[in-house]
Amino acid sequence: MSFRYEIRLSGEGGQGMILASIIFAEAAAIYEGKNVVQSQVYGPASRGGATKAEVIISDEEIDYPKATSLDFLLALTQEACDKYWKDLKEGGILVVDSSRVHTVPQGNFTIYRVPIIETAREKIGKEIVTNIVSLGVITPLIGIVSPEMVEQAINDHVPKGTEALNRQAFHAGLELGQLLKNARTA
Amino acid sequence: MSFRYEIRLSGEGGQGMILASIIFAEAAAIYEGKNVVQSQVYGPASRGGATKAEVIISDEEIDYPKATSLDFLLALTQEACDKYWKDLKEGGILVVDSSRVHTVPQGNFTIYRVPIIETAREKIGKEIVTNIVSLGVITPLIGIVSPEMVEQAINDHVPKGTEALNRQAFHAGLELGQLLKNARTA
Repeated sequence: MSFRYEIRLSGEGGQGMILASIIFAEAAAIYEGKNVVQSQVYGPASRGGATKAEVIISDEEIDYPKATSLDFLLALTQEACDKYWKDLKEGGILVVDSSRVHTVPQGNFTIYRVPIIETAREKIGKEIVTNIVSLGVITPLIGIVSPEMVEQAINDHVPKGTEALNRQAFHAGLELGQLLKNARTA
Repeated sequence: MSFRYEIRLSGEGGQGMILASIIFAEAAAIYEGKNVVQSQVYGPASRGGATKAEVIISDEEIDYPKATSLDFLLALTQEACDKYWKDLKEGGILVVDSSRVHTVPQGNFTIYRVPIIETAREKIGKEIVTNIVSLGVITPLIGIVSPEMVEQAINDHVPKGTEALNRQAFHAGLELGQLLKNARTA
């Protein structure tokens, strides 16, 4: 049977969800040898409001590159959560930022509330690394791509001179993600 | 009749074709109010070799987000040109970099050989702005999005402090693109 895994990272403009998706896609494709499609859909009302970026990972060539039944959704804002949670499939995973998402949906999926933005702002000291902290959180929860490969792909993309900062951000997220993953399977 | 326009920007890793595609997609969606899908497909052999990024622009919602019949292809390397030109539709436009693409295909489409990389290197002094020069060249040739809107989207994406450099790169490309466009329709 063919393997297909659909990921959507959502939030608002400026939170770097497109870059996070590209990094995760490249880690899966270049370093893990998967077929991957990374995409963003923009409507005429794209300015402001919720933004999203998607990654589809498969063992086979991807004929239909549109996410229709999400395995994994990250929502960094209430608006993004409200707008997109219905696309989650049964048994899927929803990760929300605990400071920005207060009302979570009910359904047959696993929800994690994680202090992603707070970790970026308080622990790393720069809210701009929210997307890299996010990558750390989601990598173990998704479980398809190894943290080492994601870290490599981060290094390929961040501005020169910021590698150490981004590494720190990734590891702070990773710690949270691994904790949640282990708590769940324990 | 519904309008659909398919663009592929291709080259090799490091030439910034994904960022150029995202900028063009956002200019079309956010500033021109179109429906847009921007995507990259990675195969297991993505490391090295030709890379591509696509933008599909439509007046309606885009149901099938895969480019199958290109209206416009940019190829910055011979390998990318050889690999992708067959996806160009009849009457489409092919832009190749004149220093890196020496053999161009024959077919029922318009070909422009443009010194894109040379302009970035010699005129702007930084090969890293090849993607921004590319945006300048393709914007008038595509003709759907105004140069002002692309310039806005460039400003949204380039690192702080590099706006002037990128503006210069965009305008150098724009000059070339407008010259070619006018020569054609004169």
